[in-house]
Amino acid sequence: MKLETLANAIGAELQGDGQHAVSGVAPLERAGPRELAFLSNRKYLSLLAESQAGAVILSREDLPEDFRGNALLTRNPYAAYARAAQLLYPQHAPAPGIHHTVILDRDLQIPVSVRVDAHAVIGRDVILGERVWIGSGVSIGEGCRIGEDTRIHPNVVLYPGTRVGARCIIHAGAVLGADGFGFAPDAGRYLKIPQLGKLVLGDDVEVGANTTIDRGALDDTVIGDGVKIDNLVQIGHNVRIGAHTVIAGQTGIAGSTRIGQHCVLGGQVGVAGHIEITDGVIISGKSQVTRGIRQSGIYSSGDAARPNAEWRRQVARLHRLDDLFRRLEALEAGLGPKTADEADKLENKGTEN
Amino acid sequence: MKLETLANAIGAELQGDGQHAVSGVAPLERAGPRELAFLSNRKYLSLLAESQAGAVILSREDLPEDFRGNALLTRNPYAAYARAAQLLYPQHAPAPGIHHTVILDRDLQIPVSVRVDAHAVIGRDVILGERVWIGSGVSIGEGCRIGEDTRIHPNVVLYPGTRVGARCIIHAGAVLGADGFGFAPDAGRYLKIPQLGKLVLGDDVEVGANTTIDRGALDDTVIGDGVKIDNLVQIGHNVRIGAHTVIAGQTGIAGSTRIGQHCVLGGQVGVAGHIEITDGVIISGKSQVTRGIRQSGIYSSGDAARPNAEWRRQVARLHRLDDLFRRLEALEAGLGPKTADEADKLENKGTEN
Amino acid sequence: MKLETLANAIGAELQGDGQHAVSGVAPLERAGPRELAFLSNRKYLSLLAESQAGAVILSREDLPEDFRGNALLTRNPYAAYARAAQLLYPQHAPAPGIHHTVILDRDLQIPVSVRVDAHAVIGRDVILGERVWIGSGVSIGEGCRIGEDTRIHPNVVLYPGTRVGARCIIHAGAVLGADGFGFAPDAGRYLKIPQLGKLVLGDDVEVGANTTIDRGALDDTVIGDGVKIDNLVQIGHNVRIGAHTVIAGQTGIAGSTRIGQHCVLGGQVGVAGHIEITDGVIISGKSQVTRGIRQSGIYSSGDAARPNAEWRRQVARLHRLDDLFRRLEALEAGLGPKTADEADKLENKGTEN
Repeated sequence: MKLETLANAIGAELQGDGQHAVSGVAPLERAGPRELAFLSNRKYLSLLAESQAGAVILSREDLPEDFRGNALLTRNPYAAYARAAQLLYPQHAPAPGIHHTVILDRDLQIPVSVRVDAHAVIGRDVILGERVWIGSGVSIGEGCRIGEDTRIHPNVVLYPGTRVGARCIIHAGAVLGADGFGFAPDAGRYLKIPQLGKLVLGDDVEVGANTTIDRGALDDTVIGDGVKIDNLVQIGHNVRIGAHTVIAGQTGIAGSTRIGQHCVLGGQVGVAGHIEITDGVIISGKSQVTRGIRQSGIYSSGDAARPNAEWRRQVARLHRLDDLFRRLEALEAGLGPKTADEADKLENKGTEN
Repeated sequence: MKLETLANAIGAELQGDGQHAVSGVAPLERAGPRELAFLSNRKYLSLLAESQAGAVILSREDLPEDFRGNALLTRNPYAAYARAAQLLYPQHAPAPGIHHTVILDRDLQIPVSVRVDAHAVIGRDVILGERVWIGSGVSIGEGCRIGEDTRIHPNVVLYPGTRVGARCIIHAGAVLGADGFGFAPDAGRYLKIPQLGKLVLGDDVEVGANTTIDRGALDDTVIGDGVKIDNLVQIGHNVRIGAHTVIAGQTGIAGSTRIGQHCVLGGQVGVAGHIEITDGVIISGKSQVTRGIRQSGIYSSGDAARPNAEWRRQVARLHRLDDLFRRLEALEAGLGPKTADEADKLENKGTEN
Repeated sequence: MKLETLANAIGAELQGDGQHAVSGVAPLERAGPRELAFLSNRKYLSLLAESQAGAVILSREDLPEDFRGNALLTRNPYAAYARAAQLLYPQHAPAPGIHHTVILDRDLQIPVSVRVDAHAVIGRDVILGERVWIGSGVSIGEGCRIGEDTRIHPNVVLYPGTRVGARCIIHAGAVLGADGFGFAPDAGRYLKIPQLGKLVLGDDVEVGANTTIDRGALDDTVIGDGVKIDNLVQIGHNVRIGAHTVIAGQTGIAGSTRIGQHCVLGGQVGVAGHIEITDGVIISGKSQVTRGIRQSGIYSSGDAARPNAEWRRQVARLHRLDDLFRRLEALEAGLGPKTADEADKLENKGTEN
């Protein structure tokens, strides 16, 4: 693809030889004359001078004055790279058709543009949009609806009634719409609460491999448009996630919690049930969120690993904080006039958690 | 279903019109005249007055004097609701039969009440109880036993020799009885320890989607009756879990640990291997359990996420605890007669972790 | 198997009756005269005297002088036990052959020693080594390569282009080579970055049930020889893991991180992206690793669960550390000559995290 064409397609300004053609992408340090690279972090500026790349996507501010290669200038190099890579590596639309081993109801009306791979099983009253691609071994329960251009990778399971929007990607092994975890304690045993809600995914949602998202108990579980969910994430029943929120691997969100739009949850985050997190909240990896968050911003908890001996000492000190406070108070009492009232106030500040 | 009949069936006392009929359940704020709602938390009492529900399950204590709707009074509204919902939404027993694409040994004796869906694979010497329902794509290894009325959702894998009790529900993608994680270090490499034990699940166990429970190394891994396990939980080899214990999503239990009866483990809890937790222990979400617990009660660790700047300051302070203790000791030394013996005692209290 | 033969095969020194035969293994306390036991921890020495085991593997140092049973003496009893158990419980090589329900390209050349179970699906241009065993319901994408003697358990999914070495074991439900989690933010939405790298697994790798390892974005994700990975582990795109590293259950490793050889990561560990961990590092369970580690050794973070009331008090104290430091400084200021410069230095020590 000529750089001229590429620049146009991704909305970048070309500086250099528009007739030069590239056919693939590669990292800055490995890219050859027929490959496109990108620079999205000034940290790697030193690699730019030596790069053999046929062209580099970068921002005008990062462009060195003496750069003599071909440059595609844009405000958002990473997004421009995403667009260029999508163009240079088009997903081959697979040949449509339903494999002869697929099991489906004979009354099902499936668009001719749909592809269903071997051994998939499709239940009654399922509605599939145009160009849906269902991988091998997938199970689609009764009454599910899947929007156009959505791709479901092998061995995914959709429980009955699950709705998936258009242009979604569901990675292998994900389980959508299984029963939420609801039990009523009764005389030392647990009674199962029937899980009667659905799971509804918006458009342009991506769900990672082996991720599980439960159906609602009474209301539905709802995942907004453009939400991106990584692998091995667990989302409980009745959770609602706003549009364009991103959730990294192994994060868990307990039942009935609401998360706003444009949030970012790092990996292994744990969010308690029945709380509300507003729009634009960023939770750093492995944090624990036990209360609602009303203000956008970055939230964190936890501490980084350190050499074991140092950590042991720190934990030991931590367990002696009570003692420390008491000793400090004794010192203060010996030194000046602190009223009982003041001491009391200080004491009560300690109950906030 | 008439309220009279329902009250009888769930053991509630009816106050109102016994001839009124309901056909479904709904949340208090959305329920209409043909729907049943419940109130299990006084927090939602304000919704009760305005509810259009055909009847409400609640406790006598929570019943407002001026309530004029139909009420089903019971000590445990949540359990009564579970029973009512089970009655109003009966699981349709699926038509029995073995799909023609199922692969099984011709010597296998399968009760006629059993249902096996498409593309399931059942190994030699498997024993299935009455009315077992095996979903599509499930793999049941040689010599497994599955008790009556147990339901196995699509794409579950049972390794050879796994035993599942009666009335269990195994959700999609769960893997039961895979090899435990056992390796012997030997000259910089790891030798695999053959995993020769089984996995044995009791009756009335529910296992969440994509959860993994390993077989034992020498002894068996044993999950007691009535244990409820959420999605993406990992249970290591030789673990034993007592009856009616509940384990929330993404919790992990390392090998050879024993957990008592009637315990509750929150989500993302990590339990170390080779320890013992007694009956009636509650572990709050994301806690780390590294030592045995001999007394029932609630146990916790960790800290909640807070605004990033505040958290950074807290962590910095935490890393200076050593310094803090030393400075306090210096102050104390300058102020009064503290014997070396006393200082020593304080010091030694710090080694408990 | 005669003890004589066994001792030879596992490289142990026999003390006792070489003609005595054992046919299985069992724990020290349960083993009978025809069973082999082992002692790898002096903690269990008391069980040795009463054991009925036909023979015991242990180290010379642990052998009691008065022991009259048969002993197999070795420096590494656990490794010797692993070898003995492998000999006494040989994996039955399954009958080779391709089940008639398997879907594969007619041009595919598959060695006659290969076994493929029911309903597996094998894409174009896949290369399988000798004696590969592919379980039921497995999906092998186009262009994958699998080395000799590798076993793939049921319902595993290999995305196109994934390479698996020789003698690997991939447990049920694992997903290898799914797209990494890469999105470019663009005007409030996320654009998908095509994931163009591969996933490459070395020889003798074991991957646990429902574990997910992503393909690379541009470069490959690479798992070294002899790496052992437990269940429900998540490994992000472009990660590189050195040979003979062990990763316990539910651990997550974010994208582009490099982990050295001979490392041990405990369960539920979280490792941030784009960092480097050197060889021989041990990370204790549930730790969070946010920065690179340049020196081998044990690293930890977190704190153990304690009774809830105690934990609440500790957290409250922790949130008052700022206050504590200020009060201490006030006391110090009142007591002696501390320069502003000194105070400043102390303050700045607090920014290390």
